[in-house]
Amino acid sequence: MAIDHPLSDAADLDAADPLASHRDRFVFADPEVVYLDGNSLGRAPKSTREAILRVVDDEWSGELIAAWDHWIDLSRETGDLIAGHVVEAHPGEVIVSDSTSVNLYKLAAAALDARPGRKVLVTDDDNFPTDRYILQGLAAARGMELRTIATDLDRGVDPARVAEAVDDDTALLCLSHVSYRSGAIADMAAITADAHAKGALVLWDLCHSAGAVPVPLASAGVDLAVGCTYKYLNGGPGAPAFLYVRRELQTSLRQPIWGWFGQRDQFAMGETYEPVDGVERFQVGTPPVIGVTAVREGVRIIAEAGMKAIREKSLRLTEYADALCRAWLEPIGFTVVTPAEAERRGGHVTVHHPEAWRIAQAMRDAKVVPDYRSPDRIRLGLAPLYTRFADVHEGLTRVRDLVTAGRHLEYGAERGRVT
Amino acid sequence: MAIDHPLSDAADLDAADPLASHRDRFVFADPEVVYLDGNSLGRAPKSTREAILRVVDDEWSGELIAAWDHWIDLSRETGDLIAGHVVEAHPGEVIVSDSTSVNLYKLAAAALDARPGRKVLVTDDDNFPTDRYILQGLAAARGMELRTIATDLDRGVDPARVAEAVDDDTALLCLSHVSYRSGAIADMAAITADAHAKGALVLWDLCHSAGAVPVPLASAGVDLAVGCTYKYLNGGPGAPAFLYVRRELQTSLRQPIWGWFGQRDQFAMGETYEPVDGVERFQVGTPPVIGVTAVREGVRIIAEAGMKAIREKSLRLTEYADALCRAWLEPIGFTVVTPAEAERRGGHVTVHHPEAWRIAQAMRDAKVVPDYRSPDRIRLGLAPLYTRFADVHEGLTRVRDLVTAGRHLEYGAERGRVT
Repeated sequence: MAIDHPLSDAADLDAADPLASHRDRFVFADPEVVYLDGNSLGRAPKSTREAILRVVDDEWSGELIAAWDHWIDLSRETGDLIAGHVVEAHPGEVIVSDSTSVNLYKLAAAALDARPGRKVLVTDDDNFPTDRYILQGLAAARGMELRTIATDLDRGVDPARVAEAVDDDTALLCLSHVSYRSGAIADMAAITADAHAKGALVLWDLCHSAGAVPVPLASAGVDLAVGCTYKYLNGGPGAPAFLYVRRELQTSLRQPIWGWFGQRDQFAMGETYEPVDGVERFQVGTPPVIGVTAVREGVRIIAEAGMKAIREKSLRLTEYADALCRAWLEPIGFTVVTPAEAERRGGHVTVHHPEAWRIAQAMRDAKVVPDYRSPDRIRLGLAPLYTRFADVHEGLTRVRDLVTAGRHLEYGAERGRVT
Repeated sequence: MAIDHPLSDAADLDAADPLASHRDRFVFADPEVVYLDGNSLGRAPKSTREAILRVVDDEWSGELIAAWDHWIDLSRETGDLIAGHVVEAHPGEVIVSDSTSVNLYKLAAAALDARPGRKVLVTDDDNFPTDRYILQGLAAARGMELRTIATDLDRGVDPARVAEAVDDDTALLCLSHVSYRSGAIADMAAITADAHAKGALVLWDLCHSAGAVPVPLASAGVDLAVGCTYKYLNGGPGAPAFLYVRRELQTSLRQPIWGWFGQRDQFAMGETYEPVDGVERFQVGTPPVIGVTAVREGVRIIAEAGMKAIREKSLRLTEYADALCRAWLEPIGFTVVTPAEAERRGGHVTVHHPEAWRIAQAMRDAKVVPDYRSPDRIRLGLAPLYTRFADVHEGLTRVRDLVTAGRHLEYGAERGRVT
């Protein structure tokens, strides 16, 4: 790659991209938009529109109540698709249900019940806010200590510090697999093994890793996990989340929200709650059929592309973006914090700039859509299924030009609502 | 009405029906189907298809992440619509969130925390299974007693028995406003007042009443409520539920699942959970945008028709169905258990028959769709927005004829899965 990174390099990389044709599976309403926020809200697959219409027209409108004969299995079937193609897990270990936050609550509470007498929960200050809040709530309700590891927010979680923090009084360790800020990958296998050596259960948040990086749940012996479907799985805004419970643990764990969709012989509507044996016991209420259908469609596209090819392209994309950021943006005040080592790099690249908030606003108006994170971070999400190397080139060209011209200074410095 | 109930009577009633034109708002894929199950899964409004496509095409595909600028208010706005048109509540007292079961858990747990020292939860054995299971789970987790009132399953909850069961040690009373089996309406005002006199908080399940009968939350001084949107509100299969918290209680209650959508200044992503003041504190994770949009569409149709007209038609429909059931079905082995008093009758009519399971199967094949409930009940849901008196006549004619001919005896007696 030449020092000046000509567009022809990006074109060559796109020409050699085995996933290039998957871009056609998605909707591009405005071809001028360079969308670098697929790590926050994934683009809409064309086939999802059709899948939703089949539910609305053929099933809800057409079959009416009789459609429950197949809807009843949808959450588990979609979970099995995720287990088979997105994360490393067995059939019957994953189910789509509720939101990530509610799933985290259910599994964390189940874990605490399974380690009676232990008084400590461990997380880190790089964990996503909702995770930290949920754990704060559980700790408060149970009079437990929530031990929060200080993590370098640019480098991600350090296994040595985790090993120090987790002790024989620790019931549960909960961390994010890929940091939502830096994009750094945590060493799932080493950290899980260390925590297991102390007798703690381990719950991983896969929101920023599912669909972007390999997730070795089975080989790392992970106990519990939750994940988001509206980012790299392209399930749509607020699509229902998924949860994972290791097979061997399922019957020994009981989650706190005893809803009828976790009940054995549900439609007998018996007097007493008795949870079903499988992963369905971690369901609660009636599943959102349209939402789960959209998740299934997104996961099917992942399955067709294959996580191996997705990860390979993701690494090439982040490497390319990293090179452009260093060459073009560091000279104009940005700092690139994405880990240089491939095995530590997730699906997005993060840069700092003291004027990040104004720059993010200016970028949106320049039709290159990033993700701002307080106080000074801009995340560039590079979803492998639909992001071209030429998009990275074009997007970063626009950023370089607008900051060089000082156009971001036309925007207010006061921070508003950013999702 | 003549003894033999000629079809012309039904036609006259339809001709005089001020809500007759609202039927055009819904999809009728197969005009031969007489759908008497709108109390389990409401029909699809035509405009919901368009509303969902606007979200998928214009917002998700078109605006991408920027659509969160308006999506963020959707759950509250839809809650306010429900507060304004479906239940008697003030703006800011209702929000759409999660499933009914998860909402029940959140509000019940919040109530128990607000009555420390009290050791009893009260419900009745006519409450819907998921309610009873959720309360069992909370009682077990907190070492509390769950006191279950024995209710006449055909007559519904008796205020005198509730007054007996609720004592000075009761933290929370939780009942269904309309019984899912008999369709009997509980006396919300009297029961709430009695429980308040003992210092207990009261949580009503509105699943079978919202959109079918008046729900006097404000005038009855109700503390907490949860409700379903996929029945009479026609929000679609598994659509997100709603919850109500009386304004004066909101800041004093804290729910157990501390998710980021309940956090004050959510996108500051601060260290410590501090719930926002309003009803939003009872949210947890990212709301399902497509699902909430469908709920809003269903509620808008209710708002246009008006609950007063809906209730009036509902009473005429259930009275008419009751008369036909008594004239045609009681002579062939059915027993009608719907309360005769208008003020105690919800939106569905319930009949018993020893062969209810076989009859329900035969009815489906005869394209008259009921709702079977174990062990011997058939519910006939009469959704006022789209059910004609002629539909009731036609449906019950088919039931009468198939049972008279013994066609239900061709079906297996073994019960399968029924939703």
